[in-house]
Amino acid sequence: MAFSERVARLKSSLIREILAAAQRPEVMSFAGGLPAEPMLPKVDWSGMPAGISQYGMSEGEPELRERIAAEARLLGVPCEASQVLVVSGSQQTLDLASKLFIDPGTEILVEAPTYLAALQSFQLFGADCITVPQEADGPDLEALRERLQQHKPAFAYLIPTFQNPSAVRYSEAKRDAVATLLDEFNVTLIEDEPYRDLVFDAGSATPIVSRLKRASWIYTGTMSKTLLPGLRVGYLIATPDLFPHLLRLKQSADLHTNRIGQWQALQWLGTEQYHAHLAELRDFYRQRRDAMQAALEEHFSDLADWQVPQGGLFFWLTLKQPLDTRSLLQPAMAQNVAFMPGEPFFTEPDANPGYLRLNFSHVEPARLGEGLRRLAAVVREAQGSK
Amino acid sequence: MAFSERVARLKSSLIREILAAAQRPEVMSFAGGLPAEPMLPKVDWSGMPAGISQYGMSEGEPELRERIAAEARLLGVPCEASQVLVVSGSQQTLDLASKLFIDPGTEILVEAPTYLAALQSFQLFGADCITVPQEADGPDLEALRERLQQHKPAFAYLIPTFQNPSAVRYSEAKRDAVATLLDEFNVTLIEDEPYRDLVFDAGSATPIVSRLKRASWIYTGTMSKTLLPGLRVGYLIATPDLFPHLLRLKQSADLHTNRIGQWQALQWLGTEQYHAHLAELRDFYRQRRDAMQAALEEHFSDLADWQVPQGGLFFWLTLKQPLDTRSLLQPAMAQNVAFMPGEPFFTEPDANPGYLRLNFSHVEPARLGEGLRRLAAVVREAQGSK
Repeated sequence: MAFSERVARLKSSLIREILAAAQRPEVMSFAGGLPAEPMLPKVDWSGMPAGISQYGMSEGEPELRERIAAEARLLGVPCEASQVLVVSGSQQTLDLASKLFIDPGTEILVEAPTYLAALQSFQLFGADCITVPQEADGPDLEALRERLQQHKPAFAYLIPTFQNPSAVRYSEAKRDAVATLLDEFNVTLIEDEPYRDLVFDAGSATPIVSRLKRASWIYTGTMSKTLLPGLRVGYLIATPDLFPHLLRLKQSADLHTNRIGQWQALQWLGTEQYHAHLAELRDFYRQRRDAMQAALEEHFSDLADWQVPQGGLFFWLTLKQPLDTRSLLQPAMAQNVAFMPGEPFFTEPDANPGYLRLNFSHVEPARLGEGLRRLAAVVREAQGSK
Repeated sequence: MAFSERVARLKSSLIREILAAAQRPEVMSFAGGLPAEPMLPKVDWSGMPAGISQYGMSEGEPELRERIAAEARLLGVPCEASQVLVVSGSQQTLDLASKLFIDPGTEILVEAPTYLAALQSFQLFGADCITVPQEADGPDLEALRERLQQHKPAFAYLIPTFQNPSAVRYSEAKRDAVATLLDEFNVTLIEDEPYRDLVFDAGSATPIVSRLKRASWIYTGTMSKTLLPGLRVGYLIATPDLFPHLLRLKQSADLHTNRIGQWQALQWLGTEQYHAHLAELRDFYRQRRDAMQAALEEHFSDLADWQVPQGGLFFWLTLKQPLDTRSLLQPAMAQNVAFMPGEPFFTEPDANPGYLRLNFSHVEPARLGEGLRRLAAVVREAQGSK
């Protein structure tokens, strides 16, 4: 069978394989990034107009695009509804951006670590990923300047607010500095913000795209983390030089995003009800984070270092004694514990051992201690046997 | 701005531009392929379980996959649920197949004419399209054998049942002959069947994939033409050598298809209620086809030749005196009439003038005569002025 050249670069999604294995009810799963089931809001479908069932516009529903643009302007993102493209979940933004920018060998710039499924999409299209180390408050600026001097990436893909997996939120200073550098070298920014609204402290920070003066940009968000993932409704907002191409790529990919999900999203986005839901969501997740922090201190303080995440869904643990955490998967699953190894979040997995991504939203607090106790024992066992 | 090489091949969808222009209520549009609004069934969302809002499996909902496989087996397609991938409308099948098979310069085989949006997807990825002329009962078999002898296409993309745009349904004999040829040359078949259920006579024919003995295949269908396009739910069924790759490409494209649409599709597919709905749909469209046939005979019998379509949504007119029908668009729109020029359905549009695709499902019979009278006048005017 003669497949395309790109199929050789097509990797299975390790995370989805782990998630599939973690479906058994007895498994305590720290692996996924799923919203907690009890916090999925009850939704009402009764008012949906029948006409919504017909084919729709590739751009998305006009009223929803207006709402998304209005919400983005509140964050300081300068945009009109005409720059909004509703997509089938923000994963599709990565697919469309890959198609727009990447030929085999095209250089792009990503954080190290970065979002696994973004790496997969970029690499599928043949990207050569230049990486910038992630620090506690954002990227290493020296390294970023050096990379931009030595390379001409087609775009920089950044997740500045509660990055998956590292939970890092860029500081105000680094946001400004990154914007200045991207403007200076005129490099397009793709800013991915699925977790912005899942914030547990008072602080946050405006998007980097709102600080750009010259560089083109794509800003992307989703309803999957705060409303309902099953809707498959996300969006991108792009500068006018990029938008028409992204729209045509969307037409070619799936004509348009499902309209029932778009209608439901419109019932929530920007409403009082939605803000109340977000407040509940933050309280719920903050409590789960705190419970996880307490359990981690009990079981992992001698094994790993971590920052307490101020948003998002994950703890990112750095083992004091690094080992390939993929080797822990099987013994952990034997103990009915699932987690996400850190290696696949790096372009060079083998060169970056010793990280674990632990989701704190899924496992109930009552089972948390037991789950982490077992996982710590698996780590200790592996380290002892080295 | 440095875009990927493929962006140079990214064409706007002429049909979607025409559709956008045809939105004005005063326009009589023969351009689209939209299901008739009055025939969109009323759907009930009240029983939908809340859990459906969570992330789902990339493969699709298990129960829906079982149902799709069962329905396909009734058509003679040998398959299990494990071979079914639910996609975000069957346009996505074209995107996934393009990714799986096409590098710049990859040869593929298509009918001439063929489905516009398929051509766009294949050409975006750089396919070199080998064409086989379409005859009244299917492809020119001599030409097909010759192409397969001289080329090694990565796949053959065929629409054997009420093709969009030509309305051709392959005869039994040609279905057998095509299957034999594809087996002989071991060429993968992608069989696209959106219109199979919209049949107006007693005859139909089993899919070509059910006749293959050796070649790999992808069979693709959709709920968009018979249930609700706005759901964006379609499916593909693939041989086991292709399926795992298509699944990973689906994960990378948008994680999974929206679950609310999948749930609704499951409420219909294979049920008594669905069969009753299909029967109504066929009656409705048959009447519209008959009204269109009568109006065409009145206004176009001296201008064009055509076959009466036995299924699908379109008449395909061959002008007796060929001209570039794209040049008719503007004068027709000035008369508030929209239609679809035939040229874009060919890989070499300029070499194939003189075809019009006319949808018969959208315009109400009361306005039909007036619309076709105006369109015929536009054709006459253009031919007279040559």
